Amino acid sequence: MLFNIAAPTYAADKKPNIVFILADNLGYGEIGSYGGGLTRGAATPRIDSLANEGTQLLNMNMEAQCTPSRASLMTGRWAIRSGTHSVPFGGVADGLTRWETTIGEALSDAGYATGYYGKWHLGSHDGRLPNDQGFDEWFGIPRTTDEALWPTASGWSPDIMPPEKTMEGKKGEKSHELAIYDVVQRRLIDAEITKRSVAFIEREAKASKPFFAYVALSQPHLPTLPNPAFTGKTGNGDWADMLAEMDANVGQLLDAVDKAGVRDNTIVIFTSDNGAEFVKPWDGWSGPWRGQYFTALEGGIRVPFLIRWPGKIAARHVSNEIVHGVDMFATLARIASAKVPTDRPMDSVDQSDFILGKSEKSAREGFPIWCADRLTAVKWRNWKMHFIRQDTMFDPPVKNPVPTIYNLYTDPREEKPTADTWVVGPMLKIVGAFDQSVKHYPLILMGTPDPYTPKK
Amino acid sequence: MLFNIAAPTYAADKKPNIVFILADNLGYGEIGSYGGGLTRGAATPRIDSLANEGTQLLNMNMEAQCTPSRASLMTGRWAIRSGTHSVPFGGVADGLTRWETTIGEALSDAGYATGYYGKWHLGSHDGRLPNDQGFDEWFGIPRTTDEALWPTASGWSPDIMPPEKTMEGKKGEKSHELAIYDVVQRRLIDAEITKRSVAFIEREAKASKPFFAYVALSQPHLPTLPNPAFTGKTGNGDWADMLAEMDANVGQLLDAVDKAGVRDNTIVIFTSDNGAEFVKPWDGWSGPWRGQYFTALEGGIRVPFLIRWPGKIAARHVSNEIVHGVDMFATLARIASAKVPTDRPMDSVDQSDFILGKSEKSAREGFPIWCADRLTAVKWRNWKMHFIRQDTMFDPPVKNPVPTIYNLYTDPREEKPTADTWVVGPMLKIVGAFDQSVKHYPLILMGTPDPYTPKK
Repeated sequence: MLFNIAAPTYAADKKPNIVFILADNLGYGEIGSYGGGLTRGAATPRIDSLANEGTQLLNMNMEAQCTPSRASLMTGRWAIRSGTHSVPFGGVADGLTRWETTIGEALSDAGYATGYYGKWHLGSHDGRLPNDQGFDEWFGIPRTTDEALWPTASGWSPDIMPPEKTMEGKKGEKSHELAIYDVVQRRLIDAEITKRSVAFIEREAKASKPFFAYVALSQPHLPTLPNPAFTGKTGNGDWADMLAEMDANVGQLLDAVDKAGVRDNTIVIFTSDNGAEFVKPWDGWSGPWRGQYFTALEGGIRVPFLIRWPGKIAARHVSNEIVHGVDMFATLARIASAKVPTDRPMDSVDQSDFILGKSEKSAREGFPIWCADRLTAVKWRNWKMHFIRQDTMFDPPVKNPVPTIYNLYTDPREEKPTADTWVVGPMLKIVGAFDQSVKHYPLILMGTPDPYTPKK
Repeated sequence: MLFNIAAPTYAADKKPNIVFILADNLGYGEIGSYGGGLTRGAATPRIDSLANEGTQLLNMNMEAQCTPSRASLMTGRWAIRSGTHSVPFGGVADGLTRWETTIGEALSDAGYATGYYGKWHLGSHDGRLPNDQGFDEWFGIPRTTDEALWPTASGWSPDIMPPEKTMEGKKGEKSHELAIYDVVQRRLIDAEITKRSVAFIEREAKASKPFFAYVALSQPHLPTLPNPAFTGKTGNGDWADMLAEMDANVGQLLDAVDKAGVRDNTIVIFTSDNGAEFVKPWDGWSGPWRGQYFTALEGGIRVPFLIRWPGKIAARHVSNEIVHGVDMFATLARIASAKVPTDRPMDSVDQSDFILGKSEKSAREGFPIWCADRLTAVKWRNWKMHFIRQDTMFDPPVKNPVPTIYNLYTDPREEKPTADTWVVGPMLKIVGAFDQSVKHYPLILMGTPDPYTPKK
């Protein structure tokens, strides 16, 4: 099933374009190739086509909530290092410091045209927006989609909490606000994200530079309200209509790649920022796993991940090897011959050999799992050890009297603690290595303003 | 995706052979094409090949426990009609009366060579064994696999409860006992079932008659102990080794079909008798559904179902249409031009148009669900109404104060009752039609001895 490609091929060739599609709170179980689609009342043939034409990971992991997972995707570092383990309230600086090197900056420096479309949530003020952090242009929302409920919420007024606005901006210029992001705009935004992404792909495919389109779709994050063009389309309710909309939007992106004639030289990735939405009535489906976002359970961190690169990445290949979103930085950097920072701890592992089929094994055996700033669990091979118990985002986290260890092969729903205490060794090694790195490179605290420079 | 075939084709052609493979308590989530396999520590490529070369049903349903599901598969009638809704203890007659027409008898009468290999559980005494009920020959166990634990159980002695024995028999002859079915034989039996099934396929493929091989594998029913040849093979424990063994056994059956040169004229079906095993440490995986066998939850009744018939049944086709195990009788009878009884209520619906791609819709919209003799729920389209709440096989069934209705699209785990009370109408119609039929054709009571003839 795996291709064997000589090492220098993808470095020496023309650099591939990258279309990175990131859904928001889309659970493991939602799309057809992961057991959803039809069982959710809406087939997802366009998204599923990536499984048919590319590689499907069954064990792709992300941090457990939006801002941290997006931070680790963007920086190749655990979010707790960059002060983005949670969303700060209270007027302090949110998001990534300018000091972080983003994948946008790395690819931009490597000669890529970079566009960001969709939800950011990594800094909502000037200096920390996508066009300040390595992207040539952007459109989207600086924060997140539950804020779309504010303008029509009883008791709310803008002087208490200003509404979120859609924005756009270009590198070197100040971003500007477009419209209040309310429930009307919430229904419309993915169409606009898709339209602008398609325009970027069409335009940049004609240019001499390779391109990197970061398409951060807003669905299905609460409130899960589909575009009017899809409302009622499936006859199976908002959720199914949303899936149909998402599938059509991904289809438009795939069509744009084809029409631009760059299919063979374009990597397309479809994944989700974390596990399933939990807030009712918009809660999602973790498929076979237990737990939803904001938890360290598999349902909180295991996400769909499909990657296509015709002729380079095996088609119809399925793997249960552990990969983490944080690995995207080093992996894409390697493929794009971009630089990975060497002046800071990088948690990103280069998975290009694995993804390109030169190794059947992932370059990673495990990882620590934080929920906010709490080291909640460690995953290693097919085991998981929970230091803290938290079953849902609304349950208080409680320290386990003894850490609970689960065998994910025999107990995928993490319900029956095992006596496999030998796995504590390699797991604590993972934690120890992190702790050691923090001694040399202290964590950037949440709310840290720019300019930030690490103490020598 | 669907083939269009003129109606008389499969009736006029040479009748197809049928290899019907039935796993025992294999949950929806276990095999690769349903999200298991690699995630369980053992790939299942041979079983999955049937999804690739055939049609995969996402909404195949069975009765909730072994004897009833096997009875409805065998008779095309809800088990409660034939006195097989539960397993009787206490020396009364168990299993199906001779009066029932089995699919073995129907296909035998239609000119098929019929072989039964594996677990029967539809009558453990002479007159009710497979060779008495339409099968030319059989090998297997008359009852079930937990009895394999008896001979080594502390306190047990054979004068208290005689041990189960493996048996074999031929039509017209008395079956005879072979070996005590203990944990040693339990590990070996699927290899023997497979070996005898392969021999039957090889032999009958050369004969002029079409053949029907009913391969009732014993795995993974508790105790889930793999064959010694597979013990330790995956390195991931007994369960994964069992999956590897099952996949290899199915592979042997597929190879036998190929080697016999009858691939194109043979229907191969792989399914399970009911939802996942529950008894620890041998509990299985319902995949994304809640509940396990003995419950009316989706995890109790929804099973994997793959069907291959090259050129006749669409390859790589996936459907979420509702089909029920009880439909196998009328469907296989139609395809084999066999007779369906007309002197009794038949619950079996002919699904051949759906399976053969002449209709995108199943011929069934819903069905009642009994747990033992309790009408526990009704499923209709994407809704389910539970009259009785029972979350596990060990929980007491409790009547719901009001029936709980779940939308399986938006709430696949049946956790959030809806107010969609309009679906009560079509659901009660299903129940009413059954009740009406019982007035004319009283239920055969559990323990009814032969000869049985219905009162006029």
